[in-house]
Amino acid sequence: MRFQPYRSPSTGRPVRAVLFDTFGTVVDWRTGVAREVAAFAARLGKELDGEAFADDWRALYQPAMEAIRSGSRGFVTLDTLHRENLDQALRQHGVEPDRLDTAGLEELNKSWHRLPPWPDSVAGLAAIRRGYIVGPLSNGNTSLLLDMARNAGLPWDVIIGSDMTRTYKPLPQAYLRTAEFLDLEPGEVMLAAAHNSDLHSAREAGLATAFVARPTEYGPGQMADLAPEGDWDLVASSVTELADRLGA
Amino acid sequence: MRFQPYRSPSTGRPVRAVLFDTFGTVVDWRTGVAREVAAFAARLGKELDGEAFADDWRALYQPAMEAIRSGSRGFVTLDTLHRENLDQALRQHGVEPDRLDTAGLEELNKSWHRLPPWPDSVAGLAAIRRGYIVGPLSNGNTSLLLDMARNAGLPWDVIIGSDMTRTYKPLPQAYLRTAEFLDLEPGEVMLAAAHNSDLHSAREAGLATAFVARPTEYGPGQMADLAPEGDWDLVASSVTELADRLGA
Repeated sequence: MRFQPYRSPSTGRPVRAVLFDTFGTVVDWRTGVAREVAAFAARLGKELDGEAFADDWRALYQPAMEAIRSGSRGFVTLDTLHRENLDQALRQHGVEPDRLDTAGLEELNKSWHRLPPWPDSVAGLAAIRRGYIVGPLSNGNTSLLLDMARNAGLPWDVIIGSDMTRTYKPLPQAYLRTAEFLDLEPGEVMLAAAHNSDLHSAREAGLATAFVARPTEYGPGQMADLAPEGDWDLVASSVTELADRLGA
Repeated sequence: MRFQPYRSPSTGRPVRAVLFDTFGTVVDWRTGVAREVAAFAARLGKELDGEAFADDWRALYQPAMEAIRSGSRGFVTLDTLHRENLDQALRQHGVEPDRLDTAGLEELNKSWHRLPPWPDSVAGLAAIRRGYIVGPLSNGNTSLLLDMARNAGLPWDVIIGSDMTRTYKPLPQAYLRTAEFLDLEPGEVMLAAAHNSDLHSAREAGLATAFVARPTEYGPGQMADLAPEGDWDLVASSVTELADRLGA
């Protein structure tokens, strides 16, 4: 019997591609960055709290993209924003980046390319891939997402980085241009994400939606995104569970 | 021992990504298109020589892209060009496309999405992928290359379609923008192709080069591209042999 793709009740369309938010949904940025920051600090003989540093570095992410989304700054890649934000985070933690070796900072900046997957991500993506196109729908640039995939073993069919859409989520064009590269209608594309705000924007752009709960993305005291806050098409506690819900 | 990537004598750089021309180099477009054309004609109760039709359809490829390369026409995808060229090829073969069902023509146009790989392609790419980033560097659009990969089992790490670079080979920007998406220097990217002209242009753009001989791409009477016509970095008779040459 031919595989019957899941039909989204909200878009009325069969889903052809399941695209994933990456940071937090597929990979555990906090653990990965904290580990590399701690090792970096140890090499320098400095004291840095890896988790607190990761949180502070990540907190600069949305404001940095906002300058580009608002049009006050031309498009630059997330690697560039991460590198600028790294200097700022270091200063917040009492370290002057201008006194440090540039190559070492570049290498630390690439910790975002080496994030570990959540335990269910690789198996879940491989299962979904049997019935659907799978790829990231992330604010990461292509080379970042490619390195991440090779390091973590993420079996993407295709990587459409934000440097290809030349915009950042949650602007509608980030979702729509991705669908266009796939030659699919927005309603044939599902966004799977651990963040309700991302799913809200995806739905407004006409995509199907799946919430994947990641209750420890921000550590043990996480308060937001513990549960779905919309009538998303699907809700799962892991990518493997999402594969089951998709019949893959 | 850590894997030592191949160092290109012409660029003086270690190769990080091996990117492939697809039509003719990785997949056998003539056999694939001829088969679908013959089946299409049989359903219509018409006589069409599949191989001759494939050759004629393919012959319209370069002139169609040339309008875009020269700037006389804005960018449109290869799917669009193939569809226009299909109408022209049908008329050349005495079939009036306006009298045919549009959905059937669209489906035939997608024969370029379903081309069979050469027998060594999948195994060779899988081997090279262990040591290098692998992807297409093709005039195909992303959705075409993605369908091709899923149908033929091509294990690409990344697909950078011509709709992402917004230009067509052999213009230098086709090679350079691809390297830029990978965050690599042109000399760290190798083009592998069965066509000397493609390799000439890639070298002028600063890429490393590998010739993969495909002496029956145009059928048994092929006259061109039977042998390397430049001092390309590597020469191989298959993708598996190229994997050996690359130490992968």
